[in-house]
Amino acid sequence: MNILVLNCGSSSLKYQLINMQDESVVAKGQIERIGAKDAILKYKPTDKSKQSITQVLEIKDHNVAISLVINTLLDKQNGVIANKSEISGIGHRVVHGGEEFIESVLITSAVKDGVRHCIQFAPLHNPHNLKGIEVCEEQLPGVPQVAVFDTAFHHTLPPKAHIYAIPLEFYKNDRIRRYGFHGTSHGFVARVAADHVGRPIEELKIITCHLGNGSSITAVQGGNSIETSMGFTPLEGLVMGTRCGDIDPALVLHLAKLKNLTVEQVDSLLNKKSGMIGLTEGKSDFRDIEDEAMAGNEKYILALEIFCHRLKKYIGAYSAVMGGLDILVFTAGIGERSPYCRNIILANMEYLGISFDPAKNEKNEFEIGTGPVRVLVIPTNEELAIARDTRKILAALK
Amino acid sequence: MNILVLNCGSSSLKYQLINMQDESVVAKGQIERIGAKDAILKYKPTDKSKQSITQVLEIKDHNVAISLVINTLLDKQNGVIANKSEISGIGHRVVHGGEEFIESVLITSAVKDGVRHCIQFAPLHNPHNLKGIEVCEEQLPGVPQVAVFDTAFHHTLPPKAHIYAIPLEFYKNDRIRRYGFHGTSHGFVARVAADHVGRPIEELKIITCHLGNGSSITAVQGGNSIETSMGFTPLEGLVMGTRCGDIDPALVLHLAKLKNLTVEQVDSLLNKKSGMIGLTEGKSDFRDIEDEAMAGNEKYILALEIFCHRLKKYIGAYSAVMGGLDILVFTAGIGERSPYCRNIILANMEYLGISFDPAKNEKNEFEIGTGPVRVLVIPTNEELAIARDTRKILAALK
Repeated sequence: MNILVLNCGSSSLKYQLINMQDESVVAKGQIERIGAKDAILKYKPTDKSKQSITQVLEIKDHNVAISLVINTLLDKQNGVIANKSEISGIGHRVVHGGEEFIESVLITSAVKDGVRHCIQFAPLHNPHNLKGIEVCEEQLPGVPQVAVFDTAFHHTLPPKAHIYAIPLEFYKNDRIRRYGFHGTSHGFVARVAADHVGRPIEELKIITCHLGNGSSITAVQGGNSIETSMGFTPLEGLVMGTRCGDIDPALVLHLAKLKNLTVEQVDSLLNKKSGMIGLTEGKSDFRDIEDEAMAGNEKYILALEIFCHRLKKYIGAYSAVMGGLDILVFTAGIGERSPYCRNIILANMEYLGISFDPAKNEKNEFEIGTGPVRVLVIPTNEELAIARDTRKILAALK
Repeated sequence: MNILVLNCGSSSLKYQLINMQDESVVAKGQIERIGAKDAILKYKPTDKSKQSITQVLEIKDHNVAISLVINTLLDKQNGVIANKSEISGIGHRVVHGGEEFIESVLITSAVKDGVRHCIQFAPLHNPHNLKGIEVCEEQLPGVPQVAVFDTAFHHTLPPKAHIYAIPLEFYKNDRIRRYGFHGTSHGFVARVAADHVGRPIEELKIITCHLGNGSSITAVQGGNSIETSMGFTPLEGLVMGTRCGDIDPALVLHLAKLKNLTVEQVDSLLNKKSGMIGLTEGKSDFRDIEDEAMAGNEKYILALEIFCHRLKKYIGAYSAVMGGLDILVFTAGIGERSPYCRNIILANMEYLGISFDPAKNEKNEFEIGTGPVRVLVIPTNEELAIARDTRKILAALK
C-alpha cells in the first residue's frame, strides 16, 4: 500500500510516495514557484532504472501542480505506479490545527471547515494546505485523505506553559496562546530516541532540538510535549535563519517608531531580515556561516555564539521544567549536520549530566553523548510520520 | 557623614538620609503626586523622639518637592540635621546609563550630558532623574552628587547575551541591545550572598531573583552580571505586576491589527494591563493574589503558576549559561515575602542540587535551602548600595 504525502505551501509543494509495507520512499519530489512561468518540477524515483526529472515550465496553480505530480507518478516510462488506485491514501501536512485538532484526522467536510477556521492563526500556510486537500479531492476522488497538524503534538502543553501573561480575555475570546510548531518532527524523534535507549517513553524526560531554517525546541515528558519554544506563531523562541526569535516585545514598538515602519514592515523585518541573516548581514545558510566562522570572521563567530547561547538557555530551562533530563536530541539540517554548533551547545554542561565525544560529534554519529544524559543525533522524517498517521487512520476505517 | 539618597520619578520622589558611620537610616520618606494639588509628603525619622509627618499639600514641581525634603530634614522640631552642610553628598538613582556608564560616577556637566543622551532609551525615567540632579545643584550648591545607574551592573554582559538577533545595524547604529535593569539590587544581594557563604564572589555562580512589582533575574558569575532577563526595556523577561514579560514578538503586531490599536495603545496594554493584573483580570498585588489562590480561586492559582513557571525556566536557563549553580537568591517584595511562590519555584529542582526546608521557607528565613545549592532570602537595599557608591566616590575626591 502506497501513501502520498503532500506539503502544500503558497508557491511550492513537496511530495513523497511511500510504500507502507517497508516504509520505503517510492518516489519524491517538489514543485517550486507555482504560479510562475518558470516553475520547477522535480521528481526522483528510488528505482535507479528510472530517470529523475527536473523540468522548468509554466505551472499556473495548485491544480496544475498536483495534476503534474500525479501524471509524473503514473508516467509509463519513469513513473512508479500504473494506476491512481495504487495510491491508498493521502497525508497532508497542515500547519495549524488550533485548539480543535489534537491529533491527525480523516479529512471530512467538517475538518475542512476546521482548517479554514484556523486560517486566522496561520494566514500564510493554512489556505494553501486546504487548497491541496481540495485539489486532491477532485483529482483523486475516493482516495481517503488525512490531515496531520504541525501543532497537534503540542496540545498537551499545560496552561502555565501555553497562556501568555497578557489580559486573559485574549485567550478566552481570541484563542491567543502558545501553539507551537514542528510537532510532527518533535514527536517523531522523541519516539525514535525512546526506542533507541530501550525505555518506555512514558518514563523519560526528553528535549528535542529541531534546528533547520526554522528552529524550535520541545520538552517531551512522559511522551507528551509540555513546553516548546515557538509560540502563537513560529517567530518566537530560538534564533533562526531569518527570524529573530525571542526579543524584548517593546523592541517591536520601538523599531516601528524609530524607523517609521508599518506593522507589515516590522513583521517582515523580524520574520525575514532578522536571525542569522540579520546578524551576519546577509547569510542564513549555516554551512556558509560556519565556513566564515572557521576562517576566523568575527561577525559570523558572534552570530553562531548568539544562536548557540539561546539554545543552551532553552536546554537549561526545559530541564528545570521537567526536573532533569534523560535524553537530548538534535535533529533537522543544523541539528543533524553541525558539529560546530553542537560543540558549543554541549560544552560546560556537565552539571546536568551532559558530556560528549568530540570525535563522534565531528562525524555526526547517532549517539555522541558520554554522560548519564544520552545525546542523540536523529534524522527527522516528517513525511514518514505523516504516512504512518495516515496508515493508522486508514486501518481504522476498515 | 550623611548621604542623601534620591530616586526621582515623574511624579514621585523617594529619599533616605543615611549616616555612613554605621550605615543607619537617619530619616526616610517620599513625595507622591508631584504636580498635583493633593500631593503627599511622607517623612519618617528613625529617632523615635521625633515625629513622623504625612501631609497632603500642593507640590507644583520637583523644585518644590526637593526643597520640601530639605526643609523637613532641617526642621527645628522634627528634623534630623541642623545645617545643609551636614549632607556630605547626594546619591541619585539613574535608570539608564546606556553603554557609556559602566559604574557609578561623580556628576559633572559631561555626566549630565550623558544622562540626557540616554533619555532615548528611558524616556519615562531619565528626564526626571536628571531634573532631580539639577534641582539639587541649585538647592544644595557645592554638595557633590553621584549618579548610580540601574544598568551599570549589567555592563559585563557578553555580546552573545546582549545582542538581539535582529539586523546588526540596529546595534551598531542605534545601540539597541539588552541593557538590563535593577542592577544595583542584583549586585547588592549577590555581594551579601557571597559574604554569607564566606567564599570569594569571584569563584561563585549566583542567580539573583529580584521579584517586586517589576521583576528581573540575573546570572552573576565571578561577581559579574553575565545574563539578565530585562532587556532593551524593563518589559522583557519575567511576568510582572502589570508587564507581560516574554511573549511571541509577532503577538505585538497581531494584537495591533486584531484590535486596531496604535503603537502607544499596544505599549500601554503590554506594560500596564498585562502580567498579573491581566491574568487575574484586576489584581497586581501578590498578597491579594495569593489570598485568592489559597482560597482556591483557580484564576489566581493559574496566574501564580504562570509567574513561577517562567521564573523556573530562567533559573534553569541561567544555570546552563554558567554551567551550574552555587547560590540562588530571592529578594525584593515578592522574593522576600512569598513562601507560596518560592515553594512552587523550588519544587522538583533536586536535579540542580536545590532542595529546601518548607518550615524555613514559610517563615521567610534568611537561608531556606538544604541541598548543595545555597538558597537565600536576602532583603535588598538599593538605597544603601547607592549611598556606599557615593561614599566611595567622595572618598576618592579627597
